[in-house]
Amino acid sequence: MTTGEACTADRARVWVGPEPDDIITSAILRGGGQLAPLSDANAVIWLHRQANDLRPILHDAVQWVQLSVAGIESWLGDPILTRGPIFTSARGAYADAVSEHALSLLLAAARQLHEAARSDRWSRLPTRMFRGSTVVIIGAGGIGRALIRDMEPLDVDVVAVTKSGTPVTGATRTLPAARMGEVWSIADYIVLAAPATADTHWLIGAAELAAMRSHAWIVNVARGTLIDSDALVRALREKRIGGAALDVTDPEPLTVEHPLWAEPRCLITSHSANPADARIAGLARRVEENVSRFAVGKPLQEVVDPDTTY
Amino acid sequence: MTTGEACTADRARVWVGPEPDDIITSAILRGGGQLAPLSDANAVIWLHRQANDLRPILHDAVQWVQLSVAGIESWLGDPILTRGPIFTSARGAYADAVSEHALSLLLAAARQLHEAARSDRWSRLPTRMFRGSTVVIIGAGGIGRALIRDMEPLDVDVVAVTKSGTPVTGATRTLPAARMGEVWSIADYIVLAAPATADTHWLIGAAELAAMRSHAWIVNVARGTLIDSDALVRALREKRIGGAALDVTDPEPLTVEHPLWAEPRCLITSHSANPADARIAGLARRVEENVSRFAVGKPLQEVVDPDTTY
Repeated sequence: MTTGEACTADRARVWVGPEPDDIITSAILRGGGQLAPLSDANAVIWLHRQANDLRPILHDAVQWVQLSVAGIESWLGDPILTRGPIFTSARGAYADAVSEHALSLLLAAARQLHEAARSDRWSRLPTRMFRGSTVVIIGAGGIGRALIRDMEPLDVDVVAVTKSGTPVTGATRTLPAARMGEVWSIADYIVLAAPATADTHWLIGAAELAAMRSHAWIVNVARGTLIDSDALVRALREKRIGGAALDVTDPEPLTVEHPLWAEPRCLITSHSANPADARIAGLARRVEENVSRFAVGKPLQEVVDPDTTY
Repeated sequence: MTTGEACTADRARVWVGPEPDDIITSAILRGGGQLAPLSDANAVIWLHRQANDLRPILHDAVQWVQLSVAGIESWLGDPILTRGPIFTSARGAYADAVSEHALSLLLAAARQLHEAARSDRWSRLPTRMFRGSTVVIIGAGGIGRALIRDMEPLDVDVVAVTKSGTPVTGATRTLPAARMGEVWSIADYIVLAAPATADTHWLIGAAELAAMRSHAWIVNVARGTLIDSDALVRALREKRIGGAALDVTDPEPLTVEHPLWAEPRCLITSHSANPADARIAGLARRVEENVSRFAVGKPLQEVVDPDTTY
């Protein structure tokens, strides 16, 4: 062993909590870190979605906390973020998994697979070609960009909406959020892939639904709060849009008596876009990368700024 | 008008039957043909799937008949094929539509969308990543090749099985039909995209199902007779495979009392892979091309050899 390696191993002393995990442990070692008890750790990989159990045990020698969540809205505003350590999120680590789910839902909508699955007799479905349609993607972070890549052979016309409107690779057009009003009437499909913030709360409400084409589908793989659920129920019931494929809902979990369950134009996948094996594999890649950066003092990926809203 | 153009227009005198169709008529004109009554026609575009109504009206001046079907198993052995005209099929004309349906079914299987559609309460689905899986495609004609193209960003390992085993572009491996026995145990997904022939009848039976991995799915966008339906029902009931997504069935239409309707691991789309608008658009492209070839005496696309079995 060279002195350099020994020194590197010494710098990243990582504790995994609240429970150990073999795949994450391997990633830490691959990244050049070593495992440590919490009392001796300078870095923490926190596998729970919430902060509650971390607050009482976090100590001053911890310089970095890697979160397992990609969407950090439940952490924002938590005083733990300003207690000292750098926090990093898993933002982007699950992009391949979630974009694949979005593509599945888009094609299911075009091919009426929700109808097919519920049918108990032979009946030709009113299927549509997805190829060549206009897909609006709201938010072009990791998920949106991965979806554009995955749809490339299908010759769709992608209209991306981002905060700034800076052109997104692979999109026919990119619009800034301020011009969002232009997209509702041109979309065959609308994919929500933006974080949950004050700006995106109820981004789709009664007015937006009313402006949509009668065959248009909404695919939500972001957060349930981006849609006004009551307005969506009304639009589906009155057949004013083609349908809604929802991996996320508001409330979540969706209550048993919620009217969305009964809407024939609605397909709900219960926050399953990130399969368990893909989730841990995606997080492991991020952990390996960030441990290797932490070990040599390089900037970490996806640092959480406690002052931003997302 | 030059003499050449007049001569060309004179050569292709096309009748569309049994009923006229505006989109096909436009395609004939774009291809340089002219419309003619049947009595004066030297070419026929036949939009029915069966030969019955064509047999009594076909006359000796007709040199070419364009069929609207891609799979011609119901025409093979019919004496009409040897009565004089060249027959051409629509083989390959619907490849984009059917391959898109196959991709939809593959992703629905990975993402358990059949379960999601039938659920009336929140429950995380046992979703899988489709990305990176092993997809066996049996038959690599137009549909198989289009599917390989459409899956390209998803990093799947494609094993193609063709009659000859000549390497298929985009496939990791191509096996000849004689080595088909090797694929059942390696596939995460098996796509049937081969014509219905004596060789492909019950290509998947009890032995093949028994050799498949317990999570493997079969996607059939070819013909129902490629699968032994009784053996499939047993395999699904005993949870020996992941599931079956069937656009085609045997019998077809599937009777109301058929046990496949009750299998939770089965998704049936009632021969809807080729949406109505895509079907007529695909046929129109083929008609335009073949009319333009017929008009100048060039070889036609997808000539039916009455002596082959497909």
